[in-house]
This record gives sequence, C-alpha cells and structure tokens, in this order.
Amino acid sequence: MDKLSSLSRFKASCPFLGRTKTSTLRNLCTSTSSRFPSISLLTERATNCPVMGPALSVRSKEIVAGYASLAGNTDIEQIHRDKGVTIPSGANIEMCPHASAARAAARMADDLAAVSKEKDTSVAKAAASAGCPFHKAALENAAKAAPVVTPVRRPVATTSGFDYESFYNNELEKKHKDKSYRYFNNINRLANKFPVAHTAKVEDEVQVWCSNDYLGMGNNPVVLETMHRTLDRYGHGAGGTRNIAGNGALHLGLERELATLHRKDAALVFSSCYVANDATLSTLGSKLPGCIMFSDQSNHASMIQGMRHSGAKKVIFKHNDLDDLENKLKAYPKETPKIIAFESVYSMCGSIGPISEICNLAKKYGALTFLDEVHAVGLYGPRGAGVAEHLDYEAQMAAGDSADPIPGSVMDRVDIITGTLGKAYGAVGGYVAGSDDFIDMIRSYAPGFIFTTSLPPATVAGAQASVAYQKTFPGDRQLKQVNVREAKRRFAALDIPVVPGPSHILPILVGDAALAKAASDKLLYDHSIYVQAINYPTVAVGEERLRVTVTPRHTAEQLDKLVSAVDNVFTELNINRIQDWKAVGGRATVGVLGQDDVVEPIWTKDQLGEETGTTPKTLKDGQKPLVDAKGVLVARSRFDHLLGPISGPLQSTHCYTFNVVRSTAATITELPQF
Amino acid sequence: MDKLSSLSRFKASCPFLGRTKTSTLRNLCTSTSSRFPSISLLTERATNCPVMGPALSVRSKEIVAGYASLAGNTDIEQIHRDKGVTIPSGANIEMCPHASAARAAARMADDLAAVSKEKDTSVAKAAASAGCPFHKAALENAAKAAPVVTPVRRPVATTSGFDYESFYNNELEKKHKDKSYRYFNNINRLANKFPVAHTAKVEDEVQVWCSNDYLGMGNNPVVLETMHRTLDRYGHGAGGTRNIAGNGALHLGLERELATLHRKDAALVFSSCYVANDATLSTLGSKLPGCIMFSDQSNHASMIQGMRHSGAKKVIFKHNDLDDLENKLKAYPKETPKIIAFESVYSMCGSIGPISEICNLAKKYGALTFLDEVHAVGLYGPRGAGVAEHLDYEAQMAAGDSADPIPGSVMDRVDIITGTLGKAYGAVGGYVAGSDDFIDMIRSYAPGFIFTTSLPPATVAGAQASVAYQKTFPGDRQLKQVNVREAKRRFAALDIPVVPGPSHILPILVGDAALAKAASDKLLYDHSIYVQAINYPTVAVGEERLRVTVTPRHTAEQLDKLVSAVDNVFTELNINRIQDWKAVGGRATVGVLGQDDVVEPIWTKDQLGEETGTTPKTLKDGQKPLVDAKGVLVARSRFDHLLGPISGPLQSTHCYTFNVVRSTAATITELPQF
Repeated sequence: MDKLSSLSRFKASCPFLGRTKTSTLRNLCTSTSSRFPSISLLTERATNCPVMGPALSVRSKEIVAGYASLAGNTDIEQIHRDKGVTIPSGANIEMCPHASAARAAARMADDLAAVSKEKDTSVAKAAASAGCPFHKAALENAAKAAPVVTPVRRPVATTSGFDYESFYNNELEKKHKDKSYRYFNNINRLANKFPVAHTAKVEDEVQVWCSNDYLGMGNNPVVLETMHRTLDRYGHGAGGTRNIAGNGALHLGLERELATLHRKDAALVFSSCYVANDATLSTLGSKLPGCIMFSDQSNHASMIQGMRHSGAKKVIFKHNDLDDLENKLKAYPKETPKIIAFESVYSMCGSIGPISEICNLAKKYGALTFLDEVHAVGLYGPRGAGVAEHLDYEAQMAAGDSADPIPGSVMDRVDIITGTLGKAYGAVGGYVAGSDDFIDMIRSYAPGFIFTTSLPPATVAGAQASVAYQKTFPGDRQLKQVNVREAKRRFAALDIPVVPGPSHILPILVGDAALAKAASDKLLYDHSIYVQAINYPTVAVGEERLRVTVTPRHTAEQLDKLVSAVDNVFTELNINRIQDWKAVGGRATVGVLGQDDVVEPIWTKDQLGEETGTTPKTLKDGQKPLVDAKGVLVARSRFDHLLGPISGPLQSTHCYTFNVVRSTAATITELPQF
Repeated sequence: MDKLSSLSRFKASCPFLGRTKTSTLRNLCTSTSSRFPSISLLTERATNCPVMGPALSVRSKEIVAGYASLAGNTDIEQIHRDKGVTIPSGANIEMCPHASAARAAARMADDLAAVSKEKDTSVAKAAASAGCPFHKAALENAAKAAPVVTPVRRPVATTSGFDYESFYNNELEKKHKDKSYRYFNNINRLANKFPVAHTAKVEDEVQVWCSNDYLGMGNNPVVLETMHRTLDRYGHGAGGTRNIAGNGALHLGLERELATLHRKDAALVFSSCYVANDATLSTLGSKLPGCIMFSDQSNHASMIQGMRHSGAKKVIFKHNDLDDLENKLKAYPKETPKIIAFESVYSMCGSIGPISEICNLAKKYGALTFLDEVHAVGLYGPRGAGVAEHLDYEAQMAAGDSADPIPGSVMDRVDIITGTLGKAYGAVGGYVAGSDDFIDMIRSYAPGFIFTTSLPPATVAGAQASVAYQKTFPGDRQLKQVNVREAKRRFAALDIPVVPGPSHILPILVGDAALAKAASDKLLYDHSIYVQAINYPTVAVGEERLRVTVTPRHTAEQLDKLVSAVDNVFTELNINRIQDWKAVGGRATVGVLGQDDVVEPIWTKDQLGEETGTTPKTLKDGQKPLVDAKGVLVARSRFDHLLGPISGPLQSTHCYTFNVVRSTAATITELPQF
C-alpha cells in the first residue's frame, strides 16, 4: 500500500495517472510479476524519471494497447506544459518513461525476445541493433525478466459470470503470439511537403513511401481550394442520411461524375469502399435467389465480408486462374444467378485480373461480373477510370468525357464496378457504378447505404474536383508509372526481391514477420523513411513484405535515398535477396525457377509518351510539382452553379509550392489567368 | 425507326440523350406501353418542349430511379448553358420535361393513382392538390393511362441465363407497391443561414426542420476555423488505413477526447457509427463463445446488422420492457456470455432507455451492456456525454473534464458506449468507448475498422473541436431543449399529435404513408419548410410521421411559421388530430386512453437554469446566435501542438454572423480577444 499511496500522490499532477482508475493502480501495485516483462523492466527504469516515474507502470500497459510506436516526446512535452509539470534541469527527456517510442520498442523487444527463445536468436539480435536507442537495453532486460506465464488479470466487477476482460486479453495475446498484433505509427502527412510527414514529434520528419494517396491528390491545390470554398458555403457535416436532409447537389454531382467516368448509367457513393463492397455484395447475394458467389482467392476483406454477410454460397477460385474459375462455373446451371467477384489490381502482390477473359466466362455461364477497381481508379486508363478502361486505351481516349458506353469495350462488359475516393483521388469514401436499376436497387435496399449519415459536402466536392482533374490530366499517372519503373529497375540491380507484377504495386519480399517489422522500424529510425511492414493476415505467413508506394511527387534524390536505405537494411538484417530465394526454390513468385522476374507493365511505352517524347520527367529536389491548368479549369467549372464561378490565382495557402502549367498532353483553347 | 433516328439526332446537343445507350433508345421507341404510365404521359407532354422533347422518355426512367423530387430547373439550366443549348424565347421552363420536379411529381402521382384505385381516392386527390403544379394534370393523365401491368422489360444481353435487370426491376417495383420507395430531396444547407438550405435551384430556399445537425455545430466558427487550418496543413484524405500511413496525431487526439468524454479507458473512431455498431457487435458476438444477444425491439438497423453478422443467437425484448428482458435473461446460465444492446434516445419515437435498470439486470445475469448514445451525445449531460452522463448530472458536472470514471455512476456501469460525430457534433464518423482491452480487441479484430481508409485529418479535427466546444459550453443543448419544449406546447395547443416522449425528438403522427409524403411535399412546396416524411420500414405501417428537429438556432418567427404551416397542412389534407386518434383508441402512443399525453422531460427546469434565471433565450429573427468564448478557447487549445497556437478573431468567413460572448454558465478567468 506504500506503493499505492505513492502512486496516488502523483495523480494530481500526472496526466497519465489522472486517467487511471484507483482499482487499476491497486492492481498494478500488487501484481509486480505482470504478463509483460517490460512492465517490470520499465518500472525499474522509471526511477530514472525525474517526475513521472510512478506513472510508467500504468502507461506501459497503454502502450501495449498499441497506439504509438512513434507517439512520444512531443505529446509528452505538451502534456507536461499543459499540466504545469516542470522537468528538473539535468533531466534527460529520453530517460522519461513516457517517451512512448521507447516503451513500444521495449514491447517489441519483448516480442523479439520471445521469438528468440522459440527459434533463431539472430532475428531478435538484429532487431536489437535496429536503431532505437532503447532496443538493446530493453532486450537485455527483457531476457532477464520472468518468462511469459499465464496472464495475471486484474479483478473484474462480476464475482461470477463470464469474465469478459480476460477474454479480451486472451484474444489480444493470440495476436501477440502469432505476430499479427498491429502497432500504429503516428504519421502526419504535410500538405506542403508531400511526400514528407511529421511523426508524433512535429520536428521529426520522415519520407512517406507507403501511403495510398497514390498521386498526391490529397494536397492538389484545386482540390483544397474547392474544399475551402465548400466549407465556407455549406459547413461541415451533411446533417443526415441521404434520405433525410443529407442529400445535396454535391452528392448528386459526384455520382454523375463517377457514372460518366465509368460510362455507366449511374453510381452510388458510400462512406467507404469497404462499405460499398460489403453492402453491394451482401445485398445482391441475399436477394438473388439461390445466388452463388465466385470469389478470387486474393480478394480484399471487404468483398469477403460482403459475401459472408449475404449468406449466399461462396466458391473460391484460384487467384487469376481462368481454368479453375470455368471448372467451377460449369458445375451450376446457366439460369442459376452467379456473381464473379474479383479485382483489377491486387494491392498486396500487384497482379492484375484478367478482366476481359472473366467477362467472357461470365457471359458463357450467365454470371454477373463485380470488379473492384479500388487500387486502379485514377491510375489506369486515359481518364483514370481503371484497368478496364486501360484495356481499350485508344478507343476510350477518343471517346473523351462522353457518358456513353463503348459497345464491346471491356469496361462496358463489366456489370458492376466499385472504386474508392480514398486512394488515388486523395479523399475518402467509396462507390459502386452500374445500370440504373441495379444502382437503384442497392440504393433502396442496402442498410449500410440507407441508415448512415452521408459524406460531408466538402469531402464530396473535394473528391469530385479530384476525379474531374484526373479525368482531364493524365500526367500524374504517367509520371507515377515512370517512377515505379525506375524504382523496380534500381531494386532489381541490387538483387533486392521485388514481387514481379505489371502494376504500380511494389512489394519487397522479406519473408518473416519479425524481420519485416524490424526492417520497417530500422528504415524509420535510422533513415527517416516510412514503409509499413505488411504481415499476416494481410499476406500469408512467410510472405511478409514491405509495400512501397512510389508517387509522381517523389524526387530522384528521394528515390536514391530509399534504394540505398533498403539496401543497407537488407544487409544489416541479413534479409534474403533474390539469389537467396532462388537458392531455396523461390517464394511468393520471387526467384521461382523458369519464371520471369520481370513482367511486362500494363502501361506501354507508347502510353507513357515515349515515342512522342512527351513522357513526364521525374522531379528533382527543389523543383515544384506541376499543376495542369486545364485540369484546374475543368475541376473549377464543376462547381460554378453552386459555389459561383472562380478565376484567377488558386485560392489555396500552399499553391505557391506548385507550378501551374499548360499540360503537354491536353489541348485547350482558352486558359485561365492564374 | 423514325422515332429512333429522331432521338439519335438530338444526341449531339442533348446532355441527357448523350448519356443514353443506343440500345436503350431503340427499346424506348419500341416499348411505348411501358410499366410506367408516366412515361407515355410525359412523352405526350414532351411535344411542348422546345428543345429537349425527345429526351424525356429517357430521363423519365432516370427520375423513376428516384434521385430528385426537388432536383430540377437550376441543374437543367446549367446543363443547357454548358452544352450551348439555347431555349427559344417564349418557351417556358416549366414546360421542359427536364424539370425533374415535375417528373418526380408525375411519378408520385402514379403512385397515388395506384393507391386511389386500391383504396381511398381522397388521399390521392388531396395529394394532387398539394402544391405541385404538375400534380393535378399528372394524376388525371395517369388515370387515363394503362393500369400497371406486368413490367415490360428492355432486352438484356444474355439470351438465356438469369435475367438480372428484370430482377432488379421487380425488387424496385415491390418498393413502389408497399410505398417504401424513397425519393431523395435535394437539400443544401447553408452555413451562414442555418437552418436555411437551398434546393436544386440555388435561389429556392427552405427552412430545414429535420436535420440531425442538432445544434448547428456543422457551421460553428471554431469548427470551421480548425478545419480550414487542418486542410492547409495536412491536406484532404488520410491516405491509408490506420495501420498503413493513415494514423495521425489528430486521430489519436480525437479518440482521447472521446474516451475522456465518456470517462472510459479508450475509444476507437470508425467511418460512421453504422460501421462502429456493425463492427463492434459482429466482432463481439462472433468471438465470445456461445454469446447471446439481447436486443431491444426498437434498435437501430446498424445494431441489428451487427448482431445478424455476428452469427450469435439473438433474443429480442419488448421496447424498454425490463420485465420482458429479465425473463429472457434468466433463461440462460449466468456464465453464458451475453450482450444487452440498447439505445439511450430512440430516434423515431423519442423514448429513452432505462439505462440504470438495464445495468442492474446486466450485473445480476452476467451480461455486457452495449449502449448506443447516437441521438444523445452532445445533447444530454453537463458535458454532452449523453443520457448516461445526464442521469448523474451534478456529480458529472462537478468532475469536470477528468478522465476518471465516477464509481457507481450510470456512465461508469455501462460497459460499451457508441456514439456518432455526424449528428449533434455536426461532422461525420462514429466511435465506440470502453475498457482498454475491449477497445484494443475491436481495433485488432474488426475488419470494418482495419481494412478501411481512416477519416480525413480535417474531419477528425473538426469533430474534436466540436466535442471540446460542447464539453465546455452547455448553452446550445439547453436552448435546444427550451425550444423543443415550446414547440411541443404549441403543437399540443393545436391538437396536433406529437408522439409523447421525454427527449428532444418531436415526431408528428400522420398514420399513412401517402399522406405523410403529401404533407411533407406540401410543407416544402407551399411553405418552404423541409420536414422529411418517415415511412415504413423505418417506422411501422400506420405509424408514418413527420420527424421534426428543433435546434437552438431556429428563431421564434421560424417556429411560428412551422406551427402554422403544419396546422394548415393538417387541415388541408384532413390528417387526424389528437382527438381523432382518441376516438379510434389511439395510435403509436398518441391519444391512448389512460395514458399521459405529456411525459416529464429528462432535462429538468433546474438543469435548464430556470431557478437561477440563466436559461438561454430563444433567438429572434435578425439576432446573431451566440458563440461561447471559453468554448472557442478550449477548442483552439486542442490543436496548439499541431497547428500552432492561434488567438484573435475567429478565422472563418462567416464568423461575423455570430456573436462571441462570455458564456453565462461557464467561468473563465482569461478570455481571448476576439
């Protein structure tokens, strides 16, 4: 109880203890041998902290809850200031247990230590030297600490009955054990320094190489201008569902924009494409009598959920395997309703679905085609409508912004297309496009559409500006592919294993969960480069990877730095290169005998403008990125009737960081004066 | 084929035909006797249209797809201008078939005509005179047209196999038949004229009386200032999931704000509260071994979906019926995991759940409590944490912004609280709050959280500013209750049947789907008042209603207008008043013998400041609404570390429409200079 009163004394001044239940404090005092070795480790270290020591044992638990492998000093300093807590002179902030980076590292060290006991200690040791100042000590201390035993639980309120808190705890422990527990990094992407972000500490900047803001449209000045204007005119939230006060001209305008993009009758916008996929597939599957879902085995979680929620029978076919799909389709009568659900670009491996061939099978066997273009819209096709559009590049380009479908084109033959506004378009939200009656049925029956507040006016306006701009200007997606190609070439030259594929996705195979996390952490701490590690269950065990996103806004110098940093980390952590994978027969399509390491990209050299010499050039440090004048003009014009016409300079605080130019690819007779 | 070539000729200039497949045109030419009488009706009328005539038969189908009972002239004029289509002098825009209001009215008239054939023609006739210039003629023509027969379908691509388009069409027909088909109104809420919105025609303004922006926080100047600043600094989209590049200091800050609001360990933000409820209940229900869900029969669709998706056994108990709940709970062993899912404020009837008593039962029978405070957060409790907080008003007020739970308080005894950012907080998104391990488990396991792009930085910053402001300043929610009370009193005096209840919800019983829609349309067209009709399946058949939302920003004059307009519409459409319902034994708790028509409100006179004379006063036309200086100060301070400190005048374009004052209810020693 001495410990308790000591802790209690600090409650008044310490913001962390202030948030802690007395029962928890009591519990912490009595359970010194916690399930987390790091608690005892850090409690010990807490004596070094001039002010906050006793709070540590509490906070370490919160860290374990996993919110901030990077959250840290700035937050702490701010809280200290806010609460009037003075740090004695001579005290070192790095000694403060509140520095959550240290605690997260300690926790990771625990995980690694556990790994090291189970299998190869080299992994943990490599990680221990991965740049974090606390790694090594934490690892050593963790090794000294008691091994992981049956979790010690704080008492729960009910004296009998089911113990919910223990249940939660055990579920989390499973995640820790199979290495699928997620630590969120604190990444704040700066609009005027794209692709740079600050971490929890505002002064600590990193280069982001894994965002899905594929083109940097999240900070495009005409998007931000549109949003500022919309905020001023229509405020923040939509204020209701689409049926009750939350349906406005901007929502209808965005849906018309998207329908035209895909040359479909209609489109419907959802809170997210997760919801769009879930709601559409579950509604279709539950309503179509006796419907069978044919699902590519690599489909995204949102589609899997939608099919599961539909209650319909699901048949999984091998990834991109037309023979397997056909064999499975032919097992059912033609008149049975069927949906073939698949993607155009698979985001974790970068493969591309055989859309046209799947449409052929669908016609032959009487199935609907449901195509997820989430990682393709904005990035493929002359207008950014996705891979289905890209496959008829010339015809689609010639058709311009007509809403008419092109008969026989791949995009026309796909029944249902879903896409996101949250990736290449740099916004948030998702949508589905298709025939009038199909869209109207989903609109009328899908609870996930009907019973939810619609997206804010400024969000949908920003999204529409982005779609309209990208429809008009292909330069961003061309430059993206140019940069992706160069990055793949550079990695290949260093024998670094990039999973081969025809798309912009650039997955670097690591092949081990702890190593992938260590590599990601090392890139972050040693090189100020953020590439998230992708582990199970997002990818299969043994196929863990770093998923690199190259944008048109990364400079040549930034690419140099990335390539060299990855090379260093591979060496330091002794991660397998292509030759190593070849030696063991290959993995995840890397280094497989008799298989090409290079796949022909879907964007041809022609489409990138190589023949005409119009290929966009990679930026260099200090160069301003380009903004296309015609794109700005078109995007602005979409809102004339609602926000009033606007001309003259872009009204966005950081538009000065851009260079507004007449696009080389677009023709326009009248340019605005910017 | 004459008709086809005639239609085809217009394709070049007509934006609507331009969007139409040739096959559809051909089909329209051959199927003159469509399933929609209005098509032939409107085709006939199309000859009056100087330019666009032929497009009508196409567009009328799009209208049937139901996007715009108000969309209309402005859109059309804009499209005419954009496409360079000239309207001949002497042509009347109202004669143009593109005026979708007319076509929607025609379709509604079809519906009404069908009703009139089935039952009482008086309803349809009343509706026919309900203000729309096209109603009457359309109704007459519809009556002449062929009766609804088996739908005539355009041919589909497959010659055999399942006919998906017919299927969609039939599903829609069901909605039309049972009157649950939804027509979306086009409502654009103006930030600087709250609660006024413009319709599809920018010049046509209406007073909004049904938005869930309960307090007008969607246009609060400190919210908008925060969003502008965040947009400038961090751009639009978050750029990734919370695990990959989409987790920033603003997301963590909002979650800390919400956890503190509910005095819980932690909170987790989702795309919407629909997703929060769905994801949380489905994850809990599927993971807890043998879990039984006890669900109030009036629960929201999102909770119903979540329970369904969980696959767990569901037991429905009668609305707010503790005896029924207890009888059902006691049928299962105490050690069986159980969840009692219920709401604090039921949004369609305005009743309030017996939270404390349900917590007692939960403890007795070993159940978790899951409380949806979606229609209560921001509106109840001294800090706006909801009804659970309100029930310990004094103690909760005394505890201020401490994150510590108050032991034994109702809010502390509820295990899981969900809330929205999209209603009283005027933003978008939803959240769940609870214990550390519970939140971490949902964070780690719920696909609807994991695999979706996180909310944009500006959205979460705006939401946090709103929550922080409302935590600090109770004046908005007090004034809201004052105005609700006055509105209820005024309606009661006119014998207009408001469903009795203790909350801010004000449902006016109409009792018939067609009548409710007619009343809503009449309010809109004749009185420029927008109150959406609420029909089946949102409420039971026979309990259709107008759901009125009174805010602290509606003026005394606006209330006068509302009350008198509703009174007129009730008279003109001969809708039942309280006495009429009494005569038939009552309905939906209105006019039930032996039952009080007035329920004691949950906000006491004391809590509204009546004893101390500090009750906020209803605004009058021309008066500026108040903004609380301390609330501004507190909301701004939340972002000092990320956006930099800010002082001086509010930086929001329409802040001049507000009056920044020192709150009467709050004490503050230092006020900023605005």
